[in-house]
Amino acid sequence: MSHHEVTLFILAVGLLLGAARILGELARAFNQPTVVGEILAGIILGPTVFGAFYPDVQQAIFPREGVFPLALQGVTNLSLVFFMLVAGLEVDLGMVARQGRASLVISLFGMVIPFSAGFVCALALPGTFGAEPDAGRLLYALFFGTALAISALPVIAKMLMDLNIYRSDFGMTVIAVAIVNDLAGWLLFAMILGMLGSGAGGGFSIPATVALTVLFGVVMLTAGRWTIDRFMPLINAYASWPAGALGFAVTGALLSAAFTGWIGVHAIFGAFLFGAALGASHNFKEKTRHTLDSFISFIFAPLFFASLGLKVDFVAQFDTLLVILVIGIASAGKVLGCGITAHRMGFSWRESWALGVGLNARGAIEIVLALLALQTGLIGERMFVALVIMALFTSLIAGGLIQALLKRRRPVRLLDHIQGAAFVPDLFAQNRRQAIAELAAAAAHAASLDAGEVAAQAWRREEMISTGLGYGLATPHARIAGLKAPLVAVGVSRQGVDFDSPDGEPANLIFLVLTPEDLMTTQIELLADIARILKEEKARAAALHARGWVEFLAAIKSISG
Amino acid sequence: MSHHEVTLFILAVGLLLGAARILGELARAFNQPTVVGEILAGIILGPTVFGAFYPDVQQAIFPREGVFPLALQGVTNLSLVFFMLVAGLEVDLGMVARQGRASLVISLFGMVIPFSAGFVCALALPGTFGAEPDAGRLLYALFFGTALAISALPVIAKMLMDLNIYRSDFGMTVIAVAIVNDLAGWLLFAMILGMLGSGAGGGFSIPATVALTVLFGVVMLTAGRWTIDRFMPLINAYASWPAGALGFAVTGALLSAAFTGWIGVHAIFGAFLFGAALGASHNFKEKTRHTLDSFISFIFAPLFFASLGLKVDFVAQFDTLLVILVIGIASAGKVLGCGITAHRMGFSWRESWALGVGLNARGAIEIVLALLALQTGLIGERMFVALVIMALFTSLIAGGLIQALLKRRRPVRLLDHIQGAAFVPDLFAQNRRQAIAELAAAAAHAASLDAGEVAAQAWRREEMISTGLGYGLATPHARIAGLKAPLVAVGVSRQGVDFDSPDGEPANLIFLVLTPEDLMTTQIELLADIARILKEEKARAAALHARGWVEFLAAIKSISG
Repeated sequence: MSHHEVTLFILAVGLLLGAARILGELARAFNQPTVVGEILAGIILGPTVFGAFYPDVQQAIFPREGVFPLALQGVTNLSLVFFMLVAGLEVDLGMVARQGRASLVISLFGMVIPFSAGFVCALALPGTFGAEPDAGRLLYALFFGTALAISALPVIAKMLMDLNIYRSDFGMTVIAVAIVNDLAGWLLFAMILGMLGSGAGGGFSIPATVALTVLFGVVMLTAGRWTIDRFMPLINAYASWPAGALGFAVTGALLSAAFTGWIGVHAIFGAFLFGAALGASHNFKEKTRHTLDSFISFIFAPLFFASLGLKVDFVAQFDTLLVILVIGIASAGKVLGCGITAHRMGFSWRESWALGVGLNARGAIEIVLALLALQTGLIGERMFVALVIMALFTSLIAGGLIQALLKRRRPVRLLDHIQGAAFVPDLFAQNRRQAIAELAAAAAHAASLDAGEVAAQAWRREEMISTGLGYGLATPHARIAGLKAPLVAVGVSRQGVDFDSPDGEPANLIFLVLTPEDLMTTQIELLADIARILKEEKARAAALHARGWVEFLAAIKSISG
Repeated sequence: MSHHEVTLFILAVGLLLGAARILGELARAFNQPTVVGEILAGIILGPTVFGAFYPDVQQAIFPREGVFPLALQGVTNLSLVFFMLVAGLEVDLGMVARQGRASLVISLFGMVIPFSAGFVCALALPGTFGAEPDAGRLLYALFFGTALAISALPVIAKMLMDLNIYRSDFGMTVIAVAIVNDLAGWLLFAMILGMLGSGAGGGFSIPATVALTVLFGVVMLTAGRWTIDRFMPLINAYASWPAGALGFAVTGALLSAAFTGWIGVHAIFGAFLFGAALGASHNFKEKTRHTLDSFISFIFAPLFFASLGLKVDFVAQFDTLLVILVIGIASAGKVLGCGITAHRMGFSWRESWALGVGLNARGAIEIVLALLALQTGLIGERMFVALVIMALFTSLIAGGLIQALLKRRRPVRLLDHIQGAAFVPDLFAQNRRQAIAELAAAAAHAASLDAGEVAAQAWRREEMISTGLGYGLATPHARIAGLKAPLVAVGVSRQGVDFDSPDGEPANLIFLVLTPEDLMTTQIELLADIARILKEEKARAAALHARGWVEFLAAIKSISG
């Protein structure tokens, strides 16, 4: 690569990553999966938007020919292996065993029904379902069925955590079903790739490839898992830390990926299985997992998903009928398949539909699968676009629908109810009455309330029992008629204000918690969240030493997580 | 890329990374910089060794033509940007300011003398010094001078930490000098690349490129630094964590790199400067730095350095005279330049020579510089090999020489003196006398001592004052005549042994510390290291729950660091 090509390559990667991160954060701000923003970033920088307006500039930075696409493929191929390693690490086989029969039955029917629907439709009407003219009809139908049958474990896990039901019986069942779906879906897809026979690196026959694939999967999750678990302590003991564990994880994923590539299925299958086997080891430390997860999820996954948008023009290849059909069949098959089975396994109808809608989220995994199918020529760009949009759409609607079906609301969090306008970085107050008055004034200003009334209400409560918690914290509070949304005014007092705390220490961080009159539990949830976040010494120190609102928010956020 | 090419690419990257990590660990086990092992891994997998024996297989996995080198370049270019970002993060400008004039003067003469020596030699005898026939003589001489003038900050920092003198006045001066050398060296090299004018992306004239380079450096380290420091809290506050900070660091490095590429110097200069500016911000959290550092230092840096060995045949291009000349002039210039100046600034002769030898270590940074010079055609493969060997050689000898000159020995560490043979995973002992006897037997067996004598010595000491430390720890100890090296026998007791500890709790982890009679301080250092490592609850729990020696060693190692 010439100096000029290197410079443009680095620029292109920087732009892709920057755009993917920014739009990923935006998606997250709206409680949506980051992959939605990441894909969108690629679509904007690719031929669809940037290329439509400035085709020359776009092609100068992201050329479709020559050195650039190859260099980028080097990076995206590794990104994909890394991403699948992390996806594999999230697979918790122990959970499937614990959830037992229910999750196996739900996952069986939750795959069979959408798979059959997709298979029959694609076999009967290949043209309508976007089969390429020269694609094998049976293989195409098998692929389409598989594409509808999988679920997206990470998206679903995140959704359940957001709603605080991850650890419930419902949540655990959903996760266990998603894990089985993930494994079975990849095994199916690997076999399809094997049958396609297009790229068998080792020159195996199709039955041999399929047999080797299944064998590798089984061996990796049993003997491989056992061996890795025994091998990890040796690495931790004799290699440097965390270099040894990190290097082992990434090298293992690469070599395992190369092996599955060699037997004739795609390389990423090996990375995924290695991740699943590695993740099961108790000797693989949380900290190593966290480092891998952070760097890969926030650098390589965004790069990979954004790079997809460079390949395809999402507007030109958008086929409305196909998109509607794919979304319709995928959703109907999955929701009905999971929902009805879940009800028969003893869940209420509401829970059953919620479970179906949750497992209907396809997320990033579907997109990876669609890309591989596109690369092997199994599907065309039209179908690729339809599958990507289906994956994004099913992920986007899942969270809200589950919330509505289960009548859960998101947990009340301090972070959502503090604001710069109601932050007093340096309280003048010498006593708690003055502190409450000062914070009430700030809150009243921010939410157009009567400051005197707010202060009076909070003081009335304060007079009953002091709200000093100790550790330099105080949480005066009041329920305010006419207040639309909860509001927490925050004040920092360097010298401290005596709040009659159990430990006798003055309060430096004072939270005035105001909640609407009708919400019974919000006040308690907010007080609990404040205590949870600030129970750690380090958190209090960071919050106390913040120079201004932004640093205060950063301190709270980095702990609140 | 076809399926087959992707598979081979992933295999190649996996092999490179695996070999680099394994040999890197080996280098580390001998207290040498990991980069030595990483480069060696590439030399073994490249044409020099693997290719010499199995040229066909080597070319099938690591082809020199076609798609593979381009895809690998995509990865190594990013690796280099990442590596320079981390190298920049280590630059602590505040330290230079604190060390003040001495470090500036030493670093000035420590650069000017080797630079002049190299410049004059290369100008006078270009042929001997490996100038390519069509290389500009003046530019070549400038480059050669610069290559001799730089120092390797990370290698030097690691060396000082190993000897426990990083925080001494001597250590701080060395680091400050290395930082100034690093910055000035890169600026010089960037200007040479600018003057070379070969790749000016934006089409600037040579004076414009040089002026822009200096300007960019100054702006980045002043206004840029200030802006980043103000911007980080916004990211911490409004983006998710740690995704926001990680994404910002990597995106910033890439875009800054692309900018310096565009003004006509190499991209990595921008990444380095961005890292230096970012690292100066107190709002850039330690945890983010750690994640970046781990993943890049242990995955991308090994990949990058190993990939160098694929490019060049280190045996065919080895020119003994040139290697000796380069090592000689580089070392003489640097050691004399730094040493004499340091002595004039008030250091003792011993310290001055130690300082010179330390700063003579060129490490990874020299290798990066040599690679870029090779790529731009400024030097040939012969000179590249000579510079790489010089960098490795000067790094390899530095640690031992400093140790000898300063008469420092490495700090005594628990990790170096425990062994499986002297580990008792489940003590039978019911009281401390029995525990000491049991551990003495294990130690005696491991080091061919008289068990009864060892137990008697330790018990005599124990009877004076109990060695129970509390927190479940006990450290009986004895100085043993005839013992060659310190030895710590470790016993774990599930039920606990009463050691008359200050907190009244029984001891679960018992360390019998045996030291030779003549070493006065070793015993105290070992006892202190045990207390340091096991003062944390988590460390004690991990050590206590270890199933066997390997897990115990892993637990100690992950904390001892």
